[in-house]
Amino acid sequence: MEKIFYPDSVVVIGASERPDNLAANIIGNLREFDYSGDIHAVGLQRGEVHGIPILPSIEALPDGVDLAVILTPAATVPDLLEACGKKNIRRAVIESGGFAEFSEAGRQLEDQVCAAARRWSIRFMGPNCISVVNMENGLCLPFAPRLQRQAVKRGNVSVLAQSGGVSITYLLMLSEAGLGVNKIVSMGNKTDLDEVDYLTFLLDDPGTEIICVHLESIEEGRRLMELAASSQKPITVHKTNTSQASAQIAFSHTAALANDDRIVDAALRQAGIARAASFDDAVALAQGFALPPVQGNDLVVISRSGGHAVMAADAVEASGFCLAPISDDLLTSTRSLSRADVIALTNPLDLGTIFDFELYARIVEESVRALDPDALLLVHAYHGDNFENEMSRRLACRLREVSRELDKSVAFCVFTQSEHIKVLRQEMNYPIFTEIEAAVRALAASRDRHARPPRLLPLPPPPDQRPHEVDGVLARDGVLNTDIALGLCDAYDIPTAEWAVVDSVDGALVVAGVLGYPLALKLLSPEVSHKSDVGGVALGIGDPEMLRAEFTALLARVEERAPDAQIDGVLVQRMLPGGREVILGGKRDESFGPVVMFGMGGVYVELLEDVAFRLAPLAREDAEEMIAEVRGSRLLHGVRGEPPADVEAVVEALLALSRLLVECPEVAEVDVNPLLVFEQGAAAVDARVVVKRQKT
Amino acid sequence: MEKIFYPDSVVVIGASERPDNLAANIIGNLREFDYSGDIHAVGLQRGEVHGIPILPSIEALPDGVDLAVILTPAATVPDLLEACGKKNIRRAVIESGGFAEFSEAGRQLEDQVCAAARRWSIRFMGPNCISVVNMENGLCLPFAPRLQRQAVKRGNVSVLAQSGGVSITYLLMLSEAGLGVNKIVSMGNKTDLDEVDYLTFLLDDPGTEIICVHLESIEEGRRLMELAASSQKPITVHKTNTSQASAQIAFSHTAALANDDRIVDAALRQAGIARAASFDDAVALAQGFALPPVQGNDLVVISRSGGHAVMAADAVEASGFCLAPISDDLLTSTRSLSRADVIALTNPLDLGTIFDFELYARIVEESVRALDPDALLLVHAYHGDNFENEMSRRLACRLREVSRELDKSVAFCVFTQSEHIKVLRQEMNYPIFTEIEAAVRALAASRDRHARPPRLLPLPPPPDQRPHEVDGVLARDGVLNTDIALGLCDAYDIPTAEWAVVDSVDGALVVAGVLGYPLALKLLSPEVSHKSDVGGVALGIGDPEMLRAEFTALLARVEERAPDAQIDGVLVQRMLPGGREVILGGKRDESFGPVVMFGMGGVYVELLEDVAFRLAPLAREDAEEMIAEVRGSRLLHGVRGEPPADVEAVVEALLALSRLLVECPEVAEVDVNPLLVFEQGAAAVDARVVVKRQKT
Repeated sequence: MEKIFYPDSVVVIGASERPDNLAANIIGNLREFDYSGDIHAVGLQRGEVHGIPILPSIEALPDGVDLAVILTPAATVPDLLEACGKKNIRRAVIESGGFAEFSEAGRQLEDQVCAAARRWSIRFMGPNCISVVNMENGLCLPFAPRLQRQAVKRGNVSVLAQSGGVSITYLLMLSEAGLGVNKIVSMGNKTDLDEVDYLTFLLDDPGTEIICVHLESIEEGRRLMELAASSQKPITVHKTNTSQASAQIAFSHTAALANDDRIVDAALRQAGIARAASFDDAVALAQGFALPPVQGNDLVVISRSGGHAVMAADAVEASGFCLAPISDDLLTSTRSLSRADVIALTNPLDLGTIFDFELYARIVEESVRALDPDALLLVHAYHGDNFENEMSRRLACRLREVSRELDKSVAFCVFTQSEHIKVLRQEMNYPIFTEIEAAVRALAASRDRHARPPRLLPLPPPPDQRPHEVDGVLARDGVLNTDIALGLCDAYDIPTAEWAVVDSVDGALVVAGVLGYPLALKLLSPEVSHKSDVGGVALGIGDPEMLRAEFTALLARVEERAPDAQIDGVLVQRMLPGGREVILGGKRDESFGPVVMFGMGGVYVELLEDVAFRLAPLAREDAEEMIAEVRGSRLLHGVRGEPPADVEAVVEALLALSRLLVECPEVAEVDVNPLLVFEQGAAAVDARVVVKRQKT
Repeated sequence: MEKIFYPDSVVVIGASERPDNLAANIIGNLREFDYSGDIHAVGLQRGEVHGIPILPSIEALPDGVDLAVILTPAATVPDLLEACGKKNIRRAVIESGGFAEFSEAGRQLEDQVCAAARRWSIRFMGPNCISVVNMENGLCLPFAPRLQRQAVKRGNVSVLAQSGGVSITYLLMLSEAGLGVNKIVSMGNKTDLDEVDYLTFLLDDPGTEIICVHLESIEEGRRLMELAASSQKPITVHKTNTSQASAQIAFSHTAALANDDRIVDAALRQAGIARAASFDDAVALAQGFALPPVQGNDLVVISRSGGHAVMAADAVEASGFCLAPISDDLLTSTRSLSRADVIALTNPLDLGTIFDFELYARIVEESVRALDPDALLLVHAYHGDNFENEMSRRLACRLREVSRELDKSVAFCVFTQSEHIKVLRQEMNYPIFTEIEAAVRALAASRDRHARPPRLLPLPPPPDQRPHEVDGVLARDGVLNTDIALGLCDAYDIPTAEWAVVDSVDGALVVAGVLGYPLALKLLSPEVSHKSDVGGVALGIGDPEMLRAEFTALLARVEERAPDAQIDGVLVQRMLPGGREVILGGKRDESFGPVVMFGMGGVYVELLEDVAFRLAPLAREDAEEMIAEVRGSRLLHGVRGEPPADVEAVVEALLALSRLLVECPEVAEVDVNPLLVFEQGAAAVDARVVVKRQKT
């Protein structure tokens, strides 16, 4: 990977003297960015671009070229890669489009590219990408014409983007914001190297301190999240392609498939990644991460205007920060600094009619020292004549010093003309926010990352031994009968309502004698997925007489409505009074692996999608947080005078379900619906398990 | 009001030669903005500020001054206003702070100010404000120092802000955005003139085409909403002060009180107002309103990059737009324009490797002509060398022409360096968006305003005649007994479960003979607000024997648990099987008047706050939309195989409740909880009514 970002020499393949030749743009950009290595060009016709002679073939190159950059029609790429291999070039960047993202024929070409790469041990970026900008050595490989070196600021933020256009926009916006850029990667189709490879590289890259990721699809979600969770560097992810409409364009764009966005959300949070909702949001988050870490919830807000202070207070409450009270000391010292005694000294502190910006810096410093908050936000506004510009520049310098000396996030939000903002940003090496809500959000993201470290447990290998009932049950694909599914729950200590399987009325009566009444009867049949649709359920059976009648009636109904169904017996189940319904679910996500879901039972919650997701395995805290996250779960704590239900039993059941998913890779889906939660304990009443063994 | 915005002469009271004198800043700003009228100054010490001599008293002024601008300590203001009155000055702007927003003594001063104003028929702005900027005549009255005329662009957007600092930020941001400003009003404490007065003025003001409102409190919500609903000019409202923390600062800031934010939301939508969430959002909304109206949901998105297109598609889906398919004609003509045949021609249209910006304009024009969408979004990105700047400027010109010629919103979103954006914005008189999500949101706000006109029915005067039962019932303040409350519902055609009041078992048996079983018994007592707490409820009474027993037991329980309670009888109510629970509510909001609420019944919905609000009176469509807005209401349409419930009966009940609230101003609160909805019809089972007659 090092040789992709730091090659000593590059060959651009596909160059020509035609004015619209895209490969020539690459050479132009390498020149513009002062690439420090050797540049070669290969093309069909001899000639020269940007002072580099065009060689007629790869064979004609000198030995020892580190990196091939290919921008030729897709159909030519497999042979070119083959030629690179022969020439001992082991790294390639394939910028050409027209592969899997475009057509089935393109997909086949992509396979041929892979074969050639394997044959010659070539690692490659793309295809369908604009690849790399490395501000450290001037390696600027996008084929976009006329990139401007002077528009780009070198800094310590690196970008990993699926889309080329998006990566260039990040390049521009991070430069505009004064943060600067270290490396940009546009990944394209990710046929060989993918986000995991690039992220691994950037995490170890000394020049990179903050990583902004843009993704339209996440294929190796689990590996990516584990990598991110172990990162010392803050990461933002701008995950797009969340709608049906965009899934279509994303597919034609970079062959991306849509992920379940709720799982993406959960996974990112578990991995300690801040999710960006837009470019502006991503930049604001990166600005927040460029400040010292926010370690807690105490925030001080200082503002030149009460109106801005009110907006800040709204944002503060929405972000879960607290506005700590102003201490008497600070009050006294602030009043002594200012003559403006018509201003109420509260937090937010409204500086109102104080026009001396030097005082602001002193009040900020006093506040940080006296109150020791976790962060401070100063909302500044000025109209931008020379005097105020100079005073504001000094103010920014002082704030930066205070922030660094005291190792505190001092966020500076400025309202003035854009040209003054730009000057501040380019000069300061200190983030300047331009929207109150964005500043508060950035501080909150820093707090979320630093006050609570990511908690994503590694997925352990399959165990040597599992409960002895399990192996046989999971040996065949399909939907398990309810008794088998409940048995699997039992085996993993998810409590179930007592049950037994019978094949006759007499058997049922015997079981009833043991379990006691009331009872439920449920048909067991592999062909019938909705038992109640064929009359295969009877509830509330109170005595032996009723049991006899209902048992016979049930079989008669099923015989009539589903005469061909194979009947594997009847489940006799104890019905338990009371209990609040919850739902536990699990599935094996293609990208993220085992995922656990929790929700309250009943039809409302389905409609309102009031559910929580987590990647398994769960820690106890994860299970607790999932329950707390579901708004309806306050029902478990007892509302309207009800006694609280056994939340601990739900936690245990979630942990048990997590173990089941982790230890049984054959389980593709599991639903425990409902789990009844009592004042003491809980019991699964129904369960559904889909087995789908992975190909080996 | 005209004379406040267009005075021929102004006196600034409180001026001095001291360098930190704030009133002097006002004179400086009038000079900077080339105010076209006469300027006078009054102060304690003679002298001169910005070339204007300081007169020692108001009496010393020439006759016929139109407007007094007062910036002196609060305690001096009542006498100064008195002096203005004597001098025949009938308009004042009081910028001083230290009134009701600051202390109780300040509140008393404010009362004295009002008294003086009444005595002399003076209308005034403020106090505690920075008042007015009028770009048409250079009337620039804020006391902020050094406002820069060159930083402000004159345009057709006017701003009505509660906060002075906020109004200045709007001045700056609207100018930055190239929209320009016509008038700015900072209202302060709104002691005399308030948002309704200013809005009335701006709605008739020829220079104002778009109105941006900032409010921390809405005191006369109803009048403001009725005014806005009748407006031909688009209005945005940036309502802050939504959190507990901000309510405190807002109070000290401009004496604002918090409104119920859910009611604010509903009211703004009914009035056709777009709610802004931040400065950036307000500016984006105003930009959208500066384009031709969006009349429907069909949107075409064209982008230079697939990555941007995906983001746009995400935003499009979230905003309820549709991406209409590209027609074959357009496909053919676009392909013929470009050689880039590896680009899939879909909507969003990804221009990919086309680098000729002139083609973009042609493709946009072709798209608008061929597809006739309701709006088009072009996402442009460039790196900003001279060539691309010039080409982009031409592109913007062409888009503006296409937009105007074809009377279609063509939204132009540009990613490039801020200085190039600024140039485009200042030159073009055409909105340039800088974030995809903001552009789509702005188009959506235009659609919401123009595709569906505001529907806010006027509040009629109290009727001459009401149902004859009503007047007696509402003659006394307090909580009505359940039977009276149900009777009120009956009188307004909200259906109720059949019931009667009895005072003995024998009476109950007679009623039961008429109503039939099963029945419920409910204690009627003014002292007991929660009947079930004292055992005052019995349900599921199935026969006369049970009725006897339960009636006696109920009275015994109440005798024991609430021995002193006055018992007004027992309600015997028919219990109806089945039915889905919904809740209807109504209240008289201090600011917005009668408000109707709808939600699904049950404990979940309370937890999840899945409810809808509307200002009464409701139109039938309002009631229907309220029901649709509540996510859980899909239950009424039948889920899990249930038959649909009688939604029409709910609509009728909501309309009836709306009538009740409108015709009975004495009703402060009403809850119909639950209303049971059956396959045919509905019935209120319980109702609670709070009477609070308004002071006359």
